[in-house]
Amino acid sequence: MTSIIKKSPEEQHRQKAFGWAARDASGVLSPFKFSRRATGDEDVTFKVLYCGICHSDLHNIKNEWGSSTYPLVPGHEIVGIVTEVGSKVQKFKVGDRVGVGCLVGACHSCDSCSQHLENYCPKMVLTYKSIDYDGNTTYGGYSDIMVVNEHYAIHFPENLPLDAGAPLLCAGITVYSPLKYYGLDKPGLHIGVVGLGGLGHVAVKFAKAFGVKVTVISTSPAKMSEAIQHLGADAFLVSRDPEQLQGAMGTMDGIIDTVSAFHPLMPLIGLLKSDGKLVMVGAPEKPLELAVFPLLAGRKTVAGSMIGGLKETQEMIDFAGKHNITADVEVIPMDYVNTAMERLVKADVRYRFVIDIANTLRAD
Amino acid sequence: MTSIIKKSPEEQHRQKAFGWAARDASGVLSPFKFSRRATGDEDVTFKVLYCGICHSDLHNIKNEWGSSTYPLVPGHEIVGIVTEVGSKVQKFKVGDRVGVGCLVGACHSCDSCSQHLENYCPKMVLTYKSIDYDGNTTYGGYSDIMVVNEHYAIHFPENLPLDAGAPLLCAGITVYSPLKYYGLDKPGLHIGVVGLGGLGHVAVKFAKAFGVKVTVISTSPAKMSEAIQHLGADAFLVSRDPEQLQGAMGTMDGIIDTVSAFHPLMPLIGLLKSDGKLVMVGAPEKPLELAVFPLLAGRKTVAGSMIGGLKETQEMIDFAGKHNITADVEVIPMDYVNTAMERLVKADVRYRFVIDIANTLRAD
Repeated sequence: MTSIIKKSPEEQHRQKAFGWAARDASGVLSPFKFSRRATGDEDVTFKVLYCGICHSDLHNIKNEWGSSTYPLVPGHEIVGIVTEVGSKVQKFKVGDRVGVGCLVGACHSCDSCSQHLENYCPKMVLTYKSIDYDGNTTYGGYSDIMVVNEHYAIHFPENLPLDAGAPLLCAGITVYSPLKYYGLDKPGLHIGVVGLGGLGHVAVKFAKAFGVKVTVISTSPAKMSEAIQHLGADAFLVSRDPEQLQGAMGTMDGIIDTVSAFHPLMPLIGLLKSDGKLVMVGAPEKPLELAVFPLLAGRKTVAGSMIGGLKETQEMIDFAGKHNITADVEVIPMDYVNTAMERLVKADVRYRFVIDIANTLRAD
Repeated sequence: MTSIIKKSPEEQHRQKAFGWAARDASGVLSPFKFSRRATGDEDVTFKVLYCGICHSDLHNIKNEWGSSTYPLVPGHEIVGIVTEVGSKVQKFKVGDRVGVGCLVGACHSCDSCSQHLENYCPKMVLTYKSIDYDGNTTYGGYSDIMVVNEHYAIHFPENLPLDAGAPLLCAGITVYSPLKYYGLDKPGLHIGVVGLGGLGHVAVKFAKAFGVKVTVISTSPAKMSEAIQHLGADAFLVSRDPEQLQGAMGTMDGIIDTVSAFHPLMPLIGLLKSDGKLVMVGAPEKPLELAVFPLLAGRKTVAGSMIGGLKETQEMIDFAGKHNITADVEVIPMDYVNTAMERLVKADVRYRFVIDIANTLRAD
């Protein structure tokens, strides 16, 4: 294994691969030649057609979470068409639409794995910047081909557009899973969605498809018409307006909080009914302030959730197919990616960039 | 009603009452003559035999939560013997053992009340320092008699000692309710109990009776033998010892955190397994720091719980009767109460003071 690691990324494996990588914490992406393993018995190999740009890609290319290694090929909202399957592959055949999200490996023996929660496996392998079980670094979907164990590939519904559907593989499952797990998917409930970005706008769509009343909570009054008229939210609250918040106190069964900047939790906890659940899916870098008495006084919960297991990811995308749920996307060519990252820093996108890999990634 | 309020506490009602009250935020308690309402159709009147001293009594006599009014008669862990019942009373007869906890009123029409959760009713009436539905201030159990609607009185098991059982009416239900609600009452689970005081020592006893493995987590290594040998805990962790904490990471299904001082949550969240629940039952005055990523990475929960409803309080005390669970108490005479409060500030009690009201409260 040591000798494999010493080879250059281009020489490690038999299948040539090409993508864009960040080379250092500047985060600037540029063309990168590497290789992928030959299609194993349980692997599917697929041609990448589209890859969404997740906000975590931005954190990772700049090593803002301290766990990045370079060269780093981002991308974990990946869709494509199967080009080769291993001899033991059962779920896929050549020509199938396929998707890969944040995970490409897990131990399959821990408590979490036994409950189809590979996303909480302590030995999970992320789609990029992880060390895979073969000792090699994983590279993500800003690239021409992917090779994954079929367990980590999901069937992509025929009726969903591949570009607008790609972000569901991270953003979609990130909000779908907690809505289900925390029981916030029951018709007639009332939930809040904090932050109207890549995660938030998809949360509104899933919640509405569940038959849940949705109030969008945002710092920006300008987003009201977008939330209500375009996305179908039932109501809108400006989170910096104490009067608006006061009027909605104690009315929500749950809140999906997608904000990854430091922000006050107290007003959000106040919006919850007794037994209400504030579910964090964004990860602010600094600790937030938690006043305990408001939790006690209504038996309230502040909880977290992180993506979802593979079984649930398939369930989510099938549900999206049935209800025609996609992300609102801006499709960009590969060589626009650095500009897209700059715009992402300013939240200047409605609501997700998706890279048109097949038509714009040129191995020259 | 206005004219009633203008009468002195001694003249407001027909039944003479006598107790000890704090007169101002010094918190010093002294003898106090007042009155209680005549026994209404749905009321039970009882002679108070014992009353526990809860830590919240200490906060309230000193107005540390800012909601106190004076004179203030504390006490919400009250047991006695029924001396009179109203014409419509169904549950009690004269001579019955009876207990009253933190609540003596609620609206009976809100969502919480309809679920037997009077403890989360926005209009609940506390046993002391609340304004009752008749407009009068409520006075607690540091007094010779109590008059309550029978809904707020519970049957006290014949086999439980009245003195050591009294603290269950607040401390007991405060830990029993979250163990049940958050599903931490299943044999074979492993829970942590943070803080070995009035709440914590009872939490250990209930959890052990449920068949749960219990680890006591304390800042004080000196409490280890007490926790394990006397209370029957399975293990002990010194919360300031990083090595001990590291060895127990990811091993607990839930934690009952009874600490009301500022303390770090991060190590406790680390002790939880995926899907683990950290339940706060103490109320630190200042907000705590909540790092969000550790919640996300294991779908963990920080939640609160506050006492319990009347139905569950009866269930709790019946369970305690069946399993011979009582608090460890130091029984004191009424005129020792100010000294007891001083000792309580220093946590100098194992684990609960109980005032012997019947034998030591003298109306002279």
